[in-house]
Amino acid sequence: MFLIDFEPVGRRGQCRGEQSLLACARDLNVDIVSICGESGKCRRCKVQIISGEVSSPTAEEKKAFSEKELQQNYRLACRTFPRGNVKVHIPPESLTAPQRTQVEGLALEVNPEPPVAALAVRMEAPTLDSPEPDDRNLWTALEQQHGIQSGSIDMMVMRTVSRSLRDAGWHVSAAVRETEIVALGKHSTRWIGLATDIGTTKIAVYLVDLETGKTIASKGLMNPQIAYGEDVVSRITAAGKSAENAAKLQTLLVDGLNQAITELCRQIDADRTSIVEAVVVGNTAIHHLFLRLPVKQLGLSPYVPAVRSAVDVKARDIGLAIAPGAYVHLLPNIAGYVGADHVAMLLAADIVEAPGVTLAIDIGTNTEICLNNNGKMTSVSCASGPAFEGAHIKYGMRAAPGAIEHFRLTGVERDIQTIGGEPAVGICGSGLLDIVAQLRTNGVLDARGRMAEHHPLVRERDGGREFVVVERPGKDDITVSQKDVRELQLAKAAIRLGIWALVESEGLTEEQIDSVIVAGAFGTYIDIESAMAIGMLPPLPTERFSQVGNAAGTGARLALISRSRRMVAHQIASLDGYMELACIPDFNRRFAEASSMSWQMSIQSARV
Amino acid sequence: MFLIDFEPVGRRGQCRGEQSLLACARDLNVDIVSICGESGKCRRCKVQIISGEVSSPTAEEKKAFSEKELQQNYRLACRTFPRGNVKVHIPPESLTAPQRTQVEGLALEVNPEPPVAALAVRMEAPTLDSPEPDDRNLWTALEQQHGIQSGSIDMMVMRTVSRSLRDAGWHVSAAVRETEIVALGKHSTRWIGLATDIGTTKIAVYLVDLETGKTIASKGLMNPQIAYGEDVVSRITAAGKSAENAAKLQTLLVDGLNQAITELCRQIDADRTSIVEAVVVGNTAIHHLFLRLPVKQLGLSPYVPAVRSAVDVKARDIGLAIAPGAYVHLLPNIAGYVGADHVAMLLAADIVEAPGVTLAIDIGTNTEICLNNNGKMTSVSCASGPAFEGAHIKYGMRAAPGAIEHFRLTGVERDIQTIGGEPAVGICGSGLLDIVAQLRTNGVLDARGRMAEHHPLVRERDGGREFVVVERPGKDDITVSQKDVRELQLAKAAIRLGIWALVESEGLTEEQIDSVIVAGAFGTYIDIESAMAIGMLPPLPTERFSQVGNAAGTGARLALISRSRRMVAHQIASLDGYMELACIPDFNRRFAEASSMSWQMSIQSARV
Repeated sequence: MFLIDFEPVGRRGQCRGEQSLLACARDLNVDIVSICGESGKCRRCKVQIISGEVSSPTAEEKKAFSEKELQQNYRLACRTFPRGNVKVHIPPESLTAPQRTQVEGLALEVNPEPPVAALAVRMEAPTLDSPEPDDRNLWTALEQQHGIQSGSIDMMVMRTVSRSLRDAGWHVSAAVRETEIVALGKHSTRWIGLATDIGTTKIAVYLVDLETGKTIASKGLMNPQIAYGEDVVSRITAAGKSAENAAKLQTLLVDGLNQAITELCRQIDADRTSIVEAVVVGNTAIHHLFLRLPVKQLGLSPYVPAVRSAVDVKARDIGLAIAPGAYVHLLPNIAGYVGADHVAMLLAADIVEAPGVTLAIDIGTNTEICLNNNGKMTSVSCASGPAFEGAHIKYGMRAAPGAIEHFRLTGVERDIQTIGGEPAVGICGSGLLDIVAQLRTNGVLDARGRMAEHHPLVRERDGGREFVVVERPGKDDITVSQKDVRELQLAKAAIRLGIWALVESEGLTEEQIDSVIVAGAFGTYIDIESAMAIGMLPPLPTERFSQVGNAAGTGARLALISRSRRMVAHQIASLDGYMELACIPDFNRRFAEASSMSWQMSIQSARV
Repeated sequence: MFLIDFEPVGRRGQCRGEQSLLACARDLNVDIVSICGESGKCRRCKVQIISGEVSSPTAEEKKAFSEKELQQNYRLACRTFPRGNVKVHIPPESLTAPQRTQVEGLALEVNPEPPVAALAVRMEAPTLDSPEPDDRNLWTALEQQHGIQSGSIDMMVMRTVSRSLRDAGWHVSAAVRETEIVALGKHSTRWIGLATDIGTTKIAVYLVDLETGKTIASKGLMNPQIAYGEDVVSRITAAGKSAENAAKLQTLLVDGLNQAITELCRQIDADRTSIVEAVVVGNTAIHHLFLRLPVKQLGLSPYVPAVRSAVDVKARDIGLAIAPGAYVHLLPNIAGYVGADHVAMLLAADIVEAPGVTLAIDIGTNTEICLNNNGKMTSVSCASGPAFEGAHIKYGMRAAPGAIEHFRLTGVERDIQTIGGEPAVGICGSGLLDIVAQLRTNGVLDARGRMAEHHPLVRERDGGREFVVVERPGKDDITVSQKDVRELQLAKAAIRLGIWALVESEGLTEEQIDSVIVAGAFGTYIDIESAMAIGMLPPLPTERFSQVGNAAGTGARLALISRSRRMVAHQIASLDGYMELACIPDFNRRFAEASSMSWQMSIQSARV
């Protein structure tokens, strides 16, 4: 056993010689980025050995790093094994540390009709003359004082009912869900609901007062499953490898949520057992991994979910540490790659009621798009890839301090804005979008995305061109390479093709779209004009666009506090027609077309 | 660690010096009787040390055994600790080994309307053009082929649904309970139900084909909780001592049931996961211990159950190893000492429909009696004690091989019948009842139960009289002592007083009872005339009595295969008015009266 010290996070602990530094970091809950399932390919788990003996660089590492970097002891954590006590430096871009996570979203404009009612009752203690059984005593009081018919009592509540009634002096508050008592407490108990939007990368957690419908605490955190891959496909692959992995992916997630719940409860001085209902949304893969449902068939054509319908499970059955009798409600999925988070977003955007032609887009590693053409809803899913999260981009990084998030080019004058105003360490998704858009509008990129040969800020490096975004004295310059531009083109082409396919299938033109709702953390930060400049979004008057933030989180909270909103979510999932992009005739040619910066939809050419 | 060898059961294993022989026996799954919670008082855990060093006899043991017995190395297992390797002989009367356990009962005369329907469906595999999610595919098939509306799927079934459908080639059988799919298997799966009557002493387990309603296997076993006390009060006390004890009492019971299920499944070559519904009945304490519900309030006045209503819990939540999605249904209780087994008995006896005045009695350690007076039902509970199980009786024993079960006295001529025709080793409940009745009718006992001083078979021993039942050359004679007679009088007085209280409260006389249903294993074996001779049962023409065997087990099976019978059970529990015997005015005087052998109910004297 060796002592490994991770800096600057300051975490240290024991590690075995046969464990890679990445495995060791995971054991110590240090979140190092890894996208490729530890195959040495993604090169994201870059660390620097500060002191101590480690294994020699592997072929993958020699390929990943320059001679100079190797001399500076830069290594891939997944390929490096300790040979003694080691001190490791983790560069910011390799950390999946807590970052700006969007928890704000649309306001909750709905009257609370919570699925769990809080009913306070007074009872008489039993006597020999009237030896009323505890459950009957409670139900009789609920009927007399609230007109509630007898139903069932959760087993965990049954196990404490006798003590609860006596400890509370026969004056209690029952949390009643439909016909079941899911929790029992003193008459003054404030019952709370939990809503969470579990993204592939980020998680938003909210605590809501079930009576008032008010959000009383919220928190953003990273999805701890990231250790098993940044996109859902790598997690599906990991879960498919062994039942142990699948179990680990589930417990990682639940443990992360439980930790967040503990913190939020501390903030508002509440007991976690007063959380009597939870609503969880996420994409279909996350939804399945959270419930430990089978995911193998999600990764194979025709990519079907095991479960589409809304699901109610006991919190205890999945390890969520809230009231033991509480239910977790998962909104319905639509298809293998259009999940409950999309349904929640559509619920928050009130798309069912939207007049005219509305487009709702949730941009992420996977982008889901829904078109509501006067009541007829259709959704598609586009594999937009992790470029927006900074992956596969040479200087890409998450939206963390030091990330370039906005950029303007005037001649050779470059203006950059970084998150937190910190010295630039990399480029996040919105920054990349801005840079590429500025390069395009300034003619540094042509319509096909080719970088100009002769430009003062363009240079040849490693057999390709790159644009220098910012010079860093004593360090590498931060650049955007021709390859990075290609990555972004693939991402934007996927989204634009999705929009095209939806509009086309309804016999509309993009011009006929009355409003575009852009949701998701990334969607909130992007410059809509930049997105239009590179052809990711259709060219429409900017006033038709609205950026709504974490609409999925808002939808989850709506479904938490309102039974009728829950019904609407069910309606959305049932009504929404799913269109499989892979089934579009001539898909590859159209995709290539859509990757052009100046691609404009043409009805004539597009009609199939 | 010492090696302990238990004979004649032939079990041996390691034991620590600080473990009593009783604790050691339990660790090795050797079932030694113990009634008093290991306090050295009940003297039932008698063993004989054959070889090896043990601790010295304690004061309790010196009191429990004669000088001769101590010389023969008779010891109380709960008071004896090994000092080296030890060989122990367990006398038959100290063993709670499998015995005659009644599993037969009334025939099931009911059309099966099982709560779980077996529905075979064929589906189409999903394609890219029709990527139907697995759950929707299944529900659509259920709707089209069986007219079943969409409902929910148990989480454990969800977790295997994708594999189940594909492994079965999209031709499956769904076990549907109300609106929930609780199991999924190949289309040819035979779905089975489990019914069990858990007595304080004995357990009857049945497997039933849910489609035909036929019982396909059954088995009797001892309740393994007996190690924690023979009556429910000692088990309530034990469970109240620590949460650990309560947990142990529950797992002991569930483990015993799981073992029985394994054996029964082997007999009929079925998989335990094809058991998709279970019905459990037992008295209120057993019911609560089985679910690990609070029992403390059951042991304290006013003795109220935590839960009276019928309960449905997931089998997995209580550790019952059947289909993971299966429910366990527990019939309702009526009161703290009138439980679900009584409801099941009344269900099997069809008491709701019985015309005239019907009395139904389930005799046991606790005896429950119900009077149906032309549709008005009232029940009482009588603490008849464990005398019928052979406890607190000098030569008492369970109904095991060698137990005297029938006895006739003609002058000084004694005829005995033992179970299995084995040499007599003790007296079981029905034997004791016969002996006392014969002593009474032959004038050896007077009306108050006093043993005659001058009778060739009566002798003075240890300061009291005893009747010699059988001489055993080279061994102790088997006798019935004056004290044993008193024990039986207490038991019979409790029962008769219960009958009196019910009849009296309806303003009836015993003569007006049209029929008496005697249920329970003990009730099946007793001689009704003997019971009348000692005044345990009212003197009525014998044709008014029917002995129905394990009616509780029959009731459990009825509730297992018929939803409408389940509703009737609910009706019984709701309609049945419970009367608390302790509330009878002048209880003690009446109890003393009822202990007389010749007590006859007198309306005048009895009316309160």
